Amino acid sequence: MEDGPRVCSVARTLEVVGDRWALLVVREAFLGSHRFDEIQRNTGAPRDILAARLKKLVEHGVLERRLYQERPPRFEYHLTEAGLALHPVITTLRQWGDRYAAERPAAPHFTHVCGGESPAELVCPDCGEPVEPRSFMRDADVRARRRAG
Amino acid sequence: MEDGPRVCSVARTLEVVGDRWALLVVREAFLGSHRFDEIQRNTGAPRDILAARLKKLVEHGVLERRLYQERPPRFEYHLTEAGLALHPVITTLRQWGDRYAAERPAAPHFTHVCGGESPAELVCPDCGEPVEPRSFMRDADVRARRRAG
Repeated sequence: MEDGPRVCSVARTLEVVGDRWALLVVREAFLGSHRFDEIQRNTGAPRDILAARLKKLVEHGVLERRLYQERPPRFEYHLTEAGLALHPVITTLRQWGDRYAAERPAAPHFTHVCGGESPAELVCPDCGEPVEPRSFMRDADVRARRRAG
Repeated sequence: MEDGPRVCSVARTLEVVGDRWALLVVREAFLGSHRFDEIQRNTGAPRDILAARLKKLVEHGVLERRLYQERPPRFEYHLTEAGLALHPVITTLRQWGDRYAAERPAAPHFTHVCGGESPAELVCPDCGEPVEPRSFMRDADVRARRRAG
């Protein structure tokens, strides 16, 4: 086995968005808040921490800055492609909170364009079946399958 | 509009698991690490922070302690039902990292029991269509739909 912490994509993601304020900033961007004061108000983040998180999210390519006022220069923060790809993370965090951490029905609530109000489910795109803790093949079976070609 | 930060299930979830170490502890539980030293080794968390996170996760009902040795008392940490329900959060964090933060193909890699290796997708269980940023009905449309019965 390797020494040191497990090398893993969960850990890599958390190096970028592994704190509450960063994830709330991403949530705000999805909800249409793009300016510092608005993000600050809706998250409640201390201003210095918020400034640091915005800078880090820009550096990691999650947000991009767009100039909206020239004198003095003022920027909006918008999700990049990588930022938009965090939508499933925000959705699954929200759904967990709806079920396990809400004191009352959570607002804002989301309704799918089809009219469905059930929580979104993770499925395997190859077979359409749910992806759950026991849905993954064991390493030994994956290797056997690869050897069999 | 309300004053103060937005009341939202994303924020509530992040009050419980809104930091890197807490989420790495949950990852470890899914991967079968249940004892303090093992979790510490695989996450790289400082021991005092790890002890605090484990305590908090137990208090919030994400983990439960199980005695595995009596003298001195030693406990394992296992996911509760609420903890197991964080699987989609961990999976979506991992998939984002695989795509946007990995320097090389990420280990451990996961293969669905059907043999599929594509990233899991979030779908609406009512219609089977993907759940994406633009998949949600606007509030006004939801209200109109409810009025129409």
